Parts: sequence; structure tokens; C-alpha cells
Amino acid sequence: PFQVQKKNIRTAALIICTFTYLIIGACIFDALEDAPFTDRKHRLERKFAQFKLDHNMTNESFRQLSDLIMNKTVVRHKWKFYDSFYFSTVVLALIGYGHRQLITSRAKIFCIFYAMLGIPMWLITFQSTGERLNSLLSCILARLKHSLHMKQTKITDGELLVTESLLSIVILIIGACVFSKYEKWSFFDSFYYGFITLTTIGFGDYVVLQNNRDKNFIEHAEYFFFCMAFIFLGLTVLASSMNLLVIRIVAFYSQERLLEKLRQEE
Amino acid sequence: PFQVQKKNIRTAALIICTFTYLIIGACIFDALEDAPFTDRKHRLERKFAQFKLDHNMTNESFRQLSDLIMNKTVVRHKWKFYDSFYFSTVVLALIGYGHRQLITSRAKIFCIFYAMLGIPMWLITFQSTGERLNSLLSCILARLKHSLHMKQTKITDGELLVTESLLSIVILIIGACVFSKYEKWSFFDSFYYGFITLTTIGFGDYVVLQNNRDKNFIEHAEYFFFCMAFIFLGLTVLASSMNLLVIRIVAFYSQERLLEKLRQEE
Ligand SMILES: [K+]
Ligand SMILES: [K+]
Repeated sequence: PFQVQKKNIRTAALIICTFTYLIIGACIFDALEDAPFTDRKHRLERKFAQFKLDHNMTNESFRQLSDLIMNKTVVRHKWKFYDSFYFSTVVLALIGYGHRQLITSRAKIFCIFYAMLGIPMWLITFQSTGERLNSLLSCILARLKHSLHMKQTKITDGELLVTESLLSIVILIIGACVFSKYEKWSFFDSFYYGFITLTTIGFGDYVVLQNNRDKNFIEHAEYFFFCMAFIFLGLTVLASSMNLLVIRIVAFYSQERLLEKLRQEE
Repeated sequence: PFQVQKKNIRTAALIICTFTYLIIGACIFDALEDAPFTDRKHRLERKFAQFKLDHNMTNESFRQLSDLIMNKTVVRHKWKFYDSFYFSTVVLALIGYGHRQLITSRAKIFCIFYAMLGIPMWLITFQSTGERLNSLLSCILARLKHSLHMKQTKITDGELLVTESLLSIVILIIGACVFSKYEKWSFFDSFYYGFITLTTIGFGDYVVLQNNRDKNFIEHAEYFFFCMAFIFLGLTVLASSMNLLVIRIVAFYSQERLLEKLRQEE
């Protein structure tokens, strides 16, 4: 009962922290995006008014046209096989850019079942590759330490975590360089895209492989593979960090429970 | 070494399965979304041609107008505080609808740091609430079994998982009913929205709280709280299922490792 109460208090404290953090975030986002809004809005509205005047359009027909054009984003491109592969990856990785929308009910139903089966599979696979990457990295680091004639060649979880954080940063920077070259985004925007992708937030404001798609795919197939590799490798590195953190937290509790059980049995 | 080889083989098998699954998905998505595409495209193009003719527009000025209107989605609404709260939640929960885009660099930089600190916090909080929900549910189920005079009142992980799956479905269905009422989507689309949200894919093709926002928020504040509660409760139930699965998998390995260590010490 004391143990339970302690857990309840810890959970309550965490919930309060998270809510406070959400509210702080809301305040800052509110303040940050406020200023440029009014300017941009006025500028756009002036341009629209000019357009209506130039082309003798009523407000109603302008609204109709807007709706049609919005709708156009949905049907801008014809899906190719590599688009669909990209889409499947984006679904299972929980990124969900929304750069392609499913319109028919049968596609939505398929997507629900596809995700229901695929997401657990994806998580187990990445948990497994993450664990393998951890042991590979331990091995490499231990050899490195050995070749540097260090006395303590055992690798701690902390050292692994630091290595993986560095690795994530390297992947993000390489990604940003390549994306900014092929997509003609600024370096910062490309970095932002990579971060939003690897955290699996996937806003969809920047999505790779959307410009001159067919031409690019034929001339720069290697770029398609780079983009996929970025997602797979980046998520593997993150999965191995998560693996370390989860093993640390969950395993600690479960080992405690096991030890208690063993003690009771004695 | 034999143990390591076994793990490598298992990981390789999982990777092959996942890739196969991705390719199968790609094939089916490819086939499913193909048919209606051509129709819709032709219909739209006819409408656009008609518009250009009616309003005496050149292709160039039409393209300019399209670009402006596309851009308009970005500045459609002014952010209110509750919008920002909703946005923060969507970032930390890794949903990332993309219904609001960050445009200024300072907002993007803040978002990166906000996510870097907030996401681990969010995951720990949900891991903790999930664990609490598990013990609450075990308690309730055990009492239920007791009151039904069943001999075995101990609750297995499997029973908990089934209960939580049922609970998820109930949440999705309640959500679908309420969303379809307030957003005027079909029941199926509302269910699809809920599923895509709680899996944290978050395509952003359907996003609640975007129609007549100010009017709705003032007249139906309870709907805003319902939407937030849907995300928080839904994710808690999923987190407790994940907690069970993770505990089962990770704890199993770590207990094995601990037992091995104890055996070696003896
Ligand atoms: K997402
Ligand atoms: K998303």
C-alpha cells in the first residue's frame, strides 16, 4: 500500500509537470507566431482583392475557386509504386506527413487494418534492431578503448547513450546537407524537416521527394534511397536509445520484483 | 556467441518481414488509390478551364492565384491560446497534424527544443499513467471476479490486454459519435480520424476543432475539453497496453539475464 501510494504520487507529479509544460509551450507558441500573422494576412488579402478586381470575380465564385484549388492538392500527382512504398513507410513509422490523402473508404479501411497489424510489427523490429545496434556499438567502443590501452574497457549504458546522441546529430546534419541540396530548402529548414521526421511528429509542412517527382526519381534514384535510409537508420539509432532507456527503467522494476520473489521463496 | 547469432537471425527475419509487409502495403495502396484518381483529375481540370475562360485569366495568372490560395491555408486563422495548447499537445503526443505551420525560424527553433525536452517527459508520464491504469484495471477486474464467485481471482496480463483492447474500441466509438456530430463528418470518417490520431500517425486530413473555431469554442467549450480528453485518455489506454507488452518482452530478457548472473555468482 505504501509502495502503491508512492507510485500514485509520482504519477500525479509527472502529470502536473506535463500539463505545466504544455501550458508554458502554449504561451510561448502563442507569443511567437502572433507578430508575423497580421502582416501576412493583410498582404494576402490585398492581393486577393486585386485579383478579384482584375478578373471581375464575385466573392462567391472566388470562394468556389479556392475550394477547388485546395482540393487540387489532393489530386496533384498520380501515385507511383515508389510513392506508395514511401507512403506505407510513413504510416508504419507513425510519421504520417499527410502529403497523400486516402479518399476512398476502401483505402481508409485497408489503412486501418494495415496499421493495426503493421505498427506492432514495426515496433518489434525496431526494438530488435535497436538492441542489435547497442551491442554492435558496445563492441566497437570496447575495441576502441582497448586499442587506446585504457584499463576499463567495459562500456556503460551512459557511454552508449552519449555515442548514440552524437550519432543522431551526425545523421541529422548529413540529412540536412543532402536535403538542402536536392529540395532547395535552407540548411535550417532541412534540419528542421529531419528533426520533425525522426521524432515521428511529421507535420508535413516539409516533405521530401515531392518536387519534380518523376524527373527526380529517374535521374536521382539514389536520392530516393537516401531518403528511405535516413528514416530507417535515424529511427534505428533512436530505437536503440529508447531501448537503453526502457531497459533501464522497466528492467530495474522487473528485476526488483524478481529479486523480491526469489527472497520470498527462500 | 550462439546466443548472439540467434539474436542476429531473429532481427534479420524481422527486418525481412517488415520490408515484405511494406512492399505488400505499397502494392495495395498503389492499386486502391489508382482508379478514382483519373476521374477526379479530369473533372477538376475541366472546372479550372471553365474558370479561366469565364474570368479571362491566363495560365500564368491562374498559377499565381493558386500559389496564393495554397499559401492562404497557412494564415487562415489567428492563433488563440487554446489553439496553441492544442498545438503543444499535438507536438508532444507525436501526432503532428500539421494543421498549423510554424513559419518563423524562432518558432521552429523553439519547437525543436520544446520537443527535445518535452517528448521524453511525455513518454515517461504516459508510461507511468499506463502502469497505474493497469493496476487500477487489475483491481477492478479482480473485484468483479470475486463478486462473481470465481475461484481464480488473479488477473493475467492477457486478460488485461483484452480489457484494454475493448476499452480502446469503446473510446474510438464514443469519439466517432461525438466527432461526427460536431464536425459533420460521416461516422466512418470520424472513426478513421480517431484511429489515425490515437496511433499518433496524425495525417492531418481530418483535424478536429478547425471549423468555425471561435464560435464553436465559445458556444461549445465542452467539445474542446472532450477532444483533449479523447487524446489523453486514448493514449493512456494505449500506453498501458504498450506497458504490458514492453514489460513482457523486455522484462523477460532482463530477468533471464539476472537469473544467469545469479547462477554464475553461486
Ligand atoms: K505523427
Ligand atoms: K503527422
